[in-house]
Amino acid sequence: MNAEIIAVGSELLLGQINNTNARFLSAQLASVGVNVYFHTVVGDNPVRLEKVLEVAKGRSDIIILTGGLGPTKDDLTKETIARQLGVELAIDEVAMKSIEGYFNKTNRTMTENNRKQALVLKGAEVLQNDHGMAPGMLFTKENHHYMLLPGPPSEMEPMFTKYGIPAITAKMGEQAKIVSRVLRFFGIGEAALETKLEDLIESQSNPTIAPLASESEVTIRLTASHASEKTAAKLIDELEEKILARVGEYFYGYDETSLINEVFKLLKTKGLTIAAAESLTGGLFQEQLTSLSGASSVFKGGIVCYTNEAKVEIVKVRKETISQDGAVSAACAKELAENVSKLLGADAGISFTGVAGPDELEGHPAGTVFVAIHVKGKATITEKLQLAGTREINRVRAVKHGCRLLINSLKE
Amino acid sequence: MNAEIIAVGSELLLGQINNTNARFLSAQLASVGVNVYFHTVVGDNPVRLEKVLEVAKGRSDIIILTGGLGPTKDDLTKETIARQLGVELAIDEVAMKSIEGYFNKTNRTMTENNRKQALVLKGAEVLQNDHGMAPGMLFTKENHHYMLLPGPPSEMEPMFTKYGIPAITAKMGEQAKIVSRVLRFFGIGEAALETKLEDLIESQSNPTIAPLASESEVTIRLTASHASEKTAAKLIDELEEKILARVGEYFYGYDETSLINEVFKLLKTKGLTIAAAESLTGGLFQEQLTSLSGASSVFKGGIVCYTNEAKVEIVKVRKETISQDGAVSAACAKELAENVSKLLGADAGISFTGVAGPDELEGHPAGTVFVAIHVKGKATITEKLQLAGTREINRVRAVKHGCRLLINSLKE
Repeated sequence: MNAEIIAVGSELLLGQINNTNARFLSAQLASVGVNVYFHTVVGDNPVRLEKVLEVAKGRSDIIILTGGLGPTKDDLTKETIARQLGVELAIDEVAMKSIEGYFNKTNRTMTENNRKQALVLKGAEVLQNDHGMAPGMLFTKENHHYMLLPGPPSEMEPMFTKYGIPAITAKMGEQAKIVSRVLRFFGIGEAALETKLEDLIESQSNPTIAPLASESEVTIRLTASHASEKTAAKLIDELEEKILARVGEYFYGYDETSLINEVFKLLKTKGLTIAAAESLTGGLFQEQLTSLSGASSVFKGGIVCYTNEAKVEIVKVRKETISQDGAVSAACAKELAENVSKLLGADAGISFTGVAGPDELEGHPAGTVFVAIHVKGKATITEKLQLAGTREINRVRAVKHGCRLLINSLKE
Repeated sequence: MNAEIIAVGSELLLGQINNTNARFLSAQLASVGVNVYFHTVVGDNPVRLEKVLEVAKGRSDIIILTGGLGPTKDDLTKETIARQLGVELAIDEVAMKSIEGYFNKTNRTMTENNRKQALVLKGAEVLQNDHGMAPGMLFTKENHHYMLLPGPPSEMEPMFTKYGIPAITAKMGEQAKIVSRVLRFFGIGEAALETKLEDLIESQSNPTIAPLASESEVTIRLTASHASEKTAAKLIDELEEKILARVGEYFYGYDETSLINEVFKLLKTKGLTIAAAESLTGGLFQEQLTSLSGASSVFKGGIVCYTNEAKVEIVKVRKETISQDGAVSAACAKELAENVSKLLGADAGISFTGVAGPDELEGHPAGTVFVAIHVKGKATITEKLQLAGTREINRVRAVKHGCRLLINSLKE
C-alpha cells in the first residue's frame, strides 16, 4: 500500500510554519513499510481541498490528512470529506465527554463552536486525542483509507504513534516484518561518520542504512525487512556491531533517547543525585533534566550564576579565581561544580561557564566554554570547548558536551 | 497569478528532512502578492514527477520546483520537464565556466557528471547560483511559468531572493502592494478569540483575518492589498484598532516577537534587573531569558530550587511556610520571588512553584502552579494557575503566564 499525506492549513501556504507533520508521518510510515509517494499542502478552502482529494484518490491507497479538525469556521476537513464521500457527520459521545471534561477541569466556559470538534464521519474508527480535544478517525471507502488527524504536532504525534499506526497496520494484513533501529551519535559530524562507514553504506540493501544530521547530533537508522521479525532483528544486530566497531566511541543510545535522558537513567541506576551551576547556558541543563518525569529522584537543584557576583556570593567561587583566572576558566568551572554539589547536598555537580556570543568576553572569543564534572570520590574533570555556532547553538552544544562528559564519567 | 511549489526529493518522503524550502518560498511569494495555493512533494521518480506536473499545469500559473538539479543519476527535474514540454536541454556557457572555476578554486578534479549541472532548458532565463554549482532557470510556455531552483536551502534561498523574485515580479506587471501584520495573543483560546471577533471574520475581505493557534498562543495575521502601500497599512491600522478594542487585554506584541522578548524589552527600557526562583519550571524562564543576546544587562541570575531543602536553605523560604502552606502555595511563591531578588541584588523577582505532573503533589493535582512577581516599590503579586496539559506543556505555559503577569506589572 502506498500513502499520501495532505496537510490542510493556509498558515502553511503563507510560510508561517513548516510542515513538520508530513516529515513525522513519513518517517513513521516508512518504519512500518508503507511507501509515501506524495505530500500535498492545501489551504483552508473546501473547493481546492476537494480537488486535492480527487487527485489523491487516483494515486494513493492511504490518504492521511492533518489539520482542519478544530472548532473554528475555517476548520473544514471533516465537512469536506463527508460531502465528497457522501457520508454523514455524527457526534462521537466519547469525544464529546472528553471535550466537556477539559473545560470543566480548567474552569473555563465551553463556547458552542467547541461541540463541532466531537463530530466524526459516521462509521469511522475514532482515534482518541490524549493531548487535546479534536479526535482523529480512520474511514475506509472503496479500498481507500482516509485517516484524519489534528494539526498541532503535540496532539497529532502521540495520537498517530499510539492509535494511528496500529489502525493502519491492521489494514495491511500479512506483510514482511519491518524492524527499524536508530543509533545515536554525538561528537562526530555527518560527513566524517559517512566516510568511516562508506563501504557499508554503498553496499547496503537489507538492512538499509540512513544517516541523518540534526541538532548537532547524527543518527543512523537501520531498517531490515524479513518474513521473520526475529531474523530482521538479527540482521540489524549484525550490522550494528560492524558500525559500532568503527564509530562506537561517539555512540550514546538507541531510538528516541537523548543525551539528557541517558544522564538521567545513569544517575538513577547508580542512585546518585546531581546539582548544577550554569553561567552561559542560563539554566538549559537543569531545564532539560527537569523536563523528564521523575527528575526529582536525581536532581537537587542548582544556581544560574550569570554574573560574577552570583558566582562568588552564592556559589562561593574564590574571588582570586575570578581575578586571576577569570570567570571563563577551567579553575572557575571546577570550583562551580564542586561547590554547587556541596551547597545543594548532591553527590555530583556539573558546571558551565563561557561565552555564548555574539560578543567576546574576558578576551575569549564567542564559543569558548569550560565544563566541569564533579562526582563524589573522583577527581573533578574539566574540559575546554571551542564552539563555532550562533549564541543559541553554542548553548545547546555546550549542554550536550556536558552530558557526554558526565555520561563517560558516570560509566567509568 | 497563483503559484504552486513542487519539491522533488525522496529524502522528504522518507521523513529525513523538513520541506523548509516550501515555507521559505511561500513567505517570499506572499510578500510580493503571489498567492500560493498548493505545495507538493514528489520523489526522485520521473514518472510520478510528470504526473505531478500535469496536475500543477491544470491549477497553477507559476510552478516553482526545488531539487533535482544536481550532478547525480537521481537528479532528474530538468530532464523530466524538458521531455514533457518538448524542449531541448543545452549547456549554458556561463554556468559551465562557473562550475569549472569552482573545481579549480578548490583544487579538485571535476568528474564528468558535473557537466550535467550546466544544462538548462533552451530559451530559459538562467538564474545564477552564487553559492553552489547548479544554476536555476525560469521558462515560460503557454502562460505557465516554470521556475527551477536547486534543493539545498543555502543555494536556493539567496538565488530566489536575488534573481527569482525580480524575475517573477517582472512577469506580473503592475500589482497591488501587500501589507501584512501579525498580532500576538496569550491567555485566550483560539475558539474564544474567534467568537469575540466572529462578525469581523465573517465580513473579512480586505484586509483578510487569519487566526492561528500554536504553542499555547494565538496569532492573527492581517493582510491588506492596495495600489498604495500607505493605504494598505491604514486599512490594517483600522482593523487592528477594532480587534484590540475587543481582545486587547490578551494582546502582547507584533510579528516575530515572543513573551520573553517583550519581558526583556520592558526590563531594558525601564532599566530594571531581575532574578528568578524556579521549582517546577526547572530553569525554563531563565533559559529563555538568557537565550536573548544582551540578557546580562537585565538578568542577575537565579536559583532552581527543585527541592524543599533548596527553597528553605538557599532561597530562605521560612520553614513554617513550607509546613503550614506547603511548597505549592501562594505564600511560598511570594517568599521565593521576594527573597530571590534580594539574594541576587535584583530590582525584580519572579518565581514558579507547582506540580508539573504527571503525578500530584501535596494533594494538588498536576497543573497546579503558583507564580509570583515582585517589583521593588510595589506589592508582590501572586497568581494561581490550573493547567491541563502534559508535564512539558504545563511547564511551558507556566512560564508564559509568568511572562504575561510580569509584563502587566511592569507596564502599570
